[in-house]
Amino acid sequence: MDAFDRLESVIASRIGGDPTQSYVAKLHARGTAKIAQKVGEEAVECVIAACGNDRAGLIGEAADLIFHLTLLLQTQGIALDDVRAELTRRDGLSGIAEKASRPKE
Amino acid sequence: MDAFDRLESVIASRIGGDPTQSYVAKLHARGTAKIAQKVGEEAVECVIAACGNDRAGLIGEAADLIFHLTLLLQTQGIALDDVRAELTRRDGLSGIAEKASRPKE
Amino acid sequence: MDAFDRLESVIASRIGGDPTQSYVAKLHARGTAKIAQKVGEEAVECVIAACGNDRAGLIGEAADLIFHLTLLLQTQGIALDDVRAELTRRDGLSGIAEKASRPKE
Amino acid sequence: MDAFDRLESVIASRIGGDPTQSYVAKLHARGTAKIAQKVGEEAVECVIAACGNDRAGLIGEAADLIFHLTLLLQTQGIALDDVRAELTRRDGLSGIAEKASRPKE
Repeated sequence: MDAFDRLESVIASRIGGDPTQSYVAKLHARGTAKIAQKVGEEAVECVIAACGNDRAGLIGEAADLIFHLTLLLQTQGIALDDVRAELTRRDGLSGIAEKASRPKE
Repeated sequence: MDAFDRLESVIASRIGGDPTQSYVAKLHARGTAKIAQKVGEEAVECVIAACGNDRAGLIGEAADLIFHLTLLLQTQGIALDDVRAELTRRDGLSGIAEKASRPKE
Repeated sequence: MDAFDRLESVIASRIGGDPTQSYVAKLHARGTAKIAQKVGEEAVECVIAACGNDRAGLIGEAADLIFHLTLLLQTQGIALDDVRAELTRRDGLSGIAEKASRPKE
Repeated sequence: MDAFDRLESVIASRIGGDPTQSYVAKLHARGTAKIAQKVGEEAVECVIAACGNDRAGLIGEAADLIFHLTLLLQTQGIALDDVRAELTRRDGLSGIAEKASRPKE
């Protein structure tokens, strides 16, 4: 089983658990804003690891970021497969170019 | 093929391309700090979409975040499989609990 | 007049202006979430400038951050003096120590 | 004395102190990247407070952000007056318009 899907399953199995026993349950109990905050924080840690060329650190922070992002998505009823579908959709629309051409800021 | 791996392949095939033709090549030419900045920005957009309960928006921002994170990892010689291995390693060490027990700030 | 207060006055004078003529009015018209996003982005740029020991860059990014923060505060009816009062209040409560002792994550 | 300048003085008086006694000294001892990380985190908390229309929360988070930003600047030898000078310089160059017209992204 893909490690990202395994992560998603583990999170799903713990999200409604005992907040005193599970980090996932505890964070979930604190609500969407708190989980979103963690996503922002882990992204900042990725930025810092990357800017410091800290390869091992970046692997760990990327894992943390994907972990918290997967949890955040789950609180909004979004599966990793929904994100995969979005990436595939873009790829079909001439791929990454679609991203580049989207009006942004 | 998994959509995340497909994304990784597409990025790898474009990263050394013509910066005037490819968003990936353009961003790569601007360097690690600029790509890291994009990771930070997309994470902030995820935060905002989640806090606004904007489900469709969050799917799009999560796709953007994973796209830029995958590119950032590549500039540091890191594959998604390295992140998968890290997540699997943690899972073996009693799973998410390992994350929860790590000393953090 | 203090430069921060001057900035605040300039923002106040433009916030209700013509979005096609004023950056402040344009951003304000796009709403709180968009201004908050800019605050997040400018903070990431401060992080990157600091990690790169880019002193001149950090001065510029710090100015950008304070500019967008002041605008964000104004959209919520908050003046810089409210933030000053909060800092003074903490200082009175044994100063920075109060911050250190606050329960945080 | 302006509360921001007072904050700057307090930080300056503690930055070289005993890390076991002072939050400022402790954070400074951990280095620029760690302080930059805090700036990023506090900005994310401002984003969340603003998006939740949490006025009191935003005042507190803005105070936290300015506190950590002032500390970050100090580690790079930058005074609040340097940021004030930058804002005044821009204002002289037709003000906020200068910011708006700067090439970004």
